[in-house]
Amino acid sequence: MLRFGINCDCGESYGRLTVGQDELVVPLVTSANIACGFHGGDPSTIRRTARLASQHGVACGAHPSLPDLMGFGRREMNIAPAEFADLIVYQLGAVKALIEAEGVRCEHVKPHGVMYAMLARSDLAEAFADAILAVDPTMAWICEDTGTAASVARRRGIRVITEFTADRAYDRDGKLVITRVPEPVDPAFVVGQLRQVVETGSIRTNVGTQIEVSTPDTFCMHSDTPNSPEIARAIRVYVESIS
Amino acid sequence: MLRFGINCDCGESYGRLTVGQDELVVPLVTSANIACGFHGGDPSTIRRTARLASQHGVACGAHPSLPDLMGFGRREMNIAPAEFADLIVYQLGAVKALIEAEGVRCEHVKPHGVMYAMLARSDLAEAFADAILAVDPTMAWICEDTGTAASVARRRGIRVITEFTADRAYDRDGKLVITRVPEPVDPAFVVGQLRQVVETGSIRTNVGTQIEVSTPDTFCMHSDTPNSPEIARAIRVYVESIS
Amino acid sequence: MLRFGINCDCGESYGRLTVGQDELVVPLVTSANIACGFHGGDPSTIRRTARLASQHGVACGAHPSLPDLMGFGRREMNIAPAEFADLIVYQLGAVKALIEAEGVRCEHVKPHGVMYAMLARSDLAEAFADAILAVDPTMAWICEDTGTAASVARRRGIRVITEFTADRAYDRDGKLVITRVPEPVDPAFVVGQLRQVVETGSIRTNVGTQIEVSTPDTFCMHSDTPNSPEIARAIRVYVESIS
Amino acid sequence: MLRFGINCDCGESYGRLTVGQDELVVPLVTSANIACGFHGGDPSTIRRTARLASQHGVACGAHPSLPDLMGFGRREMNIAPAEFADLIVYQLGAVKALIEAEGVRCEHVKPHGVMYAMLARSDLAEAFADAILAVDPTMAWICEDTGTAASVARRRGIRVITEFTADRAYDRDGKLVITRVPEPVDPAFVVGQLRQVVETGSIRTNVGTQIEVSTPDTFCMHSDTPNSPEIARAIRVYVESIS
Repeated sequence: MLRFGINCDCGESYGRLTVGQDELVVPLVTSANIACGFHGGDPSTIRRTARLASQHGVACGAHPSLPDLMGFGRREMNIAPAEFADLIVYQLGAVKALIEAEGVRCEHVKPHGVMYAMLARSDLAEAFADAILAVDPTMAWICEDTGTAASVARRRGIRVITEFTADRAYDRDGKLVITRVPEPVDPAFVVGQLRQVVETGSIRTNVGTQIEVSTPDTFCMHSDTPNSPEIARAIRVYVESIS
Repeated sequence: MLRFGINCDCGESYGRLTVGQDELVVPLVTSANIACGFHGGDPSTIRRTARLASQHGVACGAHPSLPDLMGFGRREMNIAPAEFADLIVYQLGAVKALIEAEGVRCEHVKPHGVMYAMLARSDLAEAFADAILAVDPTMAWICEDTGTAASVARRRGIRVITEFTADRAYDRDGKLVITRVPEPVDPAFVVGQLRQVVETGSIRTNVGTQIEVSTPDTFCMHSDTPNSPEIARAIRVYVESIS
Repeated sequence: MLRFGINCDCGESYGRLTVGQDELVVPLVTSANIACGFHGGDPSTIRRTARLASQHGVACGAHPSLPDLMGFGRREMNIAPAEFADLIVYQLGAVKALIEAEGVRCEHVKPHGVMYAMLARSDLAEAFADAILAVDPTMAWICEDTGTAASVARRRGIRVITEFTADRAYDRDGKLVITRVPEPVDPAFVVGQLRQVVETGSIRTNVGTQIEVSTPDTFCMHSDTPNSPEIARAIRVYVESIS
Repeated sequence: MLRFGINCDCGESYGRLTVGQDELVVPLVTSANIACGFHGGDPSTIRRTARLASQHGVACGAHPSLPDLMGFGRREMNIAPAEFADLIVYQLGAVKALIEAEGVRCEHVKPHGVMYAMLARSDLAEAFADAILAVDPTMAWICEDTGTAASVARRRGIRVITEFTADRAYDRDGKLVITRVPEPVDPAFVVGQLRQVVETGSIRTNVGTQIEVSTPDTFCMHSDTPNSPEIARAIRVYVESIS
């Protein structure tokens, strides 16, 4: 049993159109957030990814998105909470069925792309909770420890898995520094950042200041970073070394 | 309890783009075959249709399609059986979750459009059975009494609900006469055809010959016929009169 | 020659999924804003609508949208100006080719749905102008007389056709009162509002106040109002009566 | 001036979902067949690809597909010829506008995926010709020298550019051996095959027999072969060596 989980987004390819290096990365993590078809993830890719995860004992979960294949779920969209809930129920149901077809459970859910940040709006976070509770109240919600999502989840009785994003820098406000097309990240930077979180409960931001971060349950990494397999190995080695 | 069921396709609208007269027709049938998003049926339409059905005690089911919104699932498509099964699992899972979110069960499945006919290919019918068994082996499969679909379903242990299409003429080979954009159908023709099936086990084809048909469990009608509410009422009155 | 044009959105159906009453409305207007496939309008619907318009001597134009079939182009979306311009070029090119295949010109462009309002952002209005200039600098831009769109168009040398929306009420700030699913509108209200614009340069808002409006080149009406044919006839009769 | 052209499919990525190695391959070919959005190719990818091609003096053309993003245009689909023509006009218009926005012409068209083979049906080939003639009768049609497509094109007055596919083996009937997910191909095999075509007018099939092939105008290669840049360089060196 590892002291920290490692989760990564995966199953985001769409037919012959590909993103990520799932074959190399998924075996190294502990939780697979599988795309649900709205930003990536055709049904056969979803199922193949669930199979890959289950073969390596990796927990399968759903990674729903705004309906935006062209923009990869990164274009904020104005959507009414009730319609938003329906979009999530649809995606969770679809992915859960494909995961269960591989003989394993859909254990968690993590929102994709700009939707992750949109859940700072409490009406959308409540709608997201409605969707989880409608589909399977035992599914956990991967989110940051602080913020609207975690507080809505806890109040609604949904299990929270807290995460810290390992492979991105943070700015002075504790926000992730997002780049449109990710560039390679130095594994030493990633592990250094994790070590600081674990040992001191803080990180160094991209402007050199220190900010506090709470100890998470799982570390998040992105499979579409060009050197993601290398990063996954580095995180895995570090997590095993402290477990 | 009615002696025969009445089933109709519904939930096929997509946002502001509409087809069918669900509000008027669904309350008159006994089984609602709800679109799953691939030929129609955005998540909110699916859910609203499930609610409408459940409010009237109408059984909810899934109506999966080829991925073809532009062609309304009527363009035959060459697709590998394993990918075909994944498409069905995805759709069944999505619709089942939205139906259950309304507090009722997804009781049956009926393929949409050209897919209905494609299940004459035994590899696709087996894939369709795989999908049902993976998602919920208690769901029934609505199909014609004879043919590949019914025989595959029975061999695989899936409950079959046999149907006869009420609101279309049949040709000399017992095939439905399909028109691209449906025109109004005379309710007297529909009821006359049903009466003949029930009383004599035969129908008169569009060229005047008689062919035998077996007694079905349910009569199928289409909600996108221009006068579908009138047809639904006529079928309902007839079925109640003999129950 | 009429003193005022009448324009309406059309060609928004998508295969068997329909919206609007184009067959009845298009013959009564002077400019047809034809959907481009992103919120409605499959290629064959676009072409059929261009044919219908050309048969009645109605000017054909493009009605581009955000990529949002499910939300009918009414969900505001955060999109970078350069990508926005590319989306518009794509749609204008596609619709222009289908209109020209019917032997007529694509004479104007009018943004659809929430995009209309988004062009209040000057970077998006500039991107929209870039797209028009790249595809055909002789195309006119239908917009309100005041506001960012008109001023960007004029500065960039694009011909402006000013419009006033005939079949909706306005609020105290001069904004249209939008309803999600349009209800029937009293033709007497529509004509009364137009008469007031033409005779006094003002309208009465939905709270009873008067606001000034400039005299437009064309009146806009919506073909998806349930009684749109009746409204189109009323506007047509009024415009002919003063021409 | 090279003695033979080299053409490759490109611009097939879709937002963050990618396929092909356009940056490395396009500069080495003479004609770029740019995807049109139906199997890949979002508007910004199309435009960026047109820019890349124009910067290297590579001729830009359109690469239309069946509407099938999920199946990458490789699932044969039953579609009526008139609707088929409309789909092509739409795509040609869209891509032509984006190419021209980069200041260059759309010089040719080449059908993608299974559509290439479907044009063996003369009604579809005629519809394809209708579409080209409607959009721009000066565009050339890249196809095999023999077969329905070339004969329809020639009869309809459309300029034909004949091609030979360089990077795939042929079977005893002269059909390409297609693999779903392409594997690396030995550049020596490719150049050997081309040399045989050029020098002897024949090739060796995958079962060892010889079949005759006519001398083409251009050699086709695929940018989604894993080692496509290496193959492009080998073809380029060979073509330059004999020019």
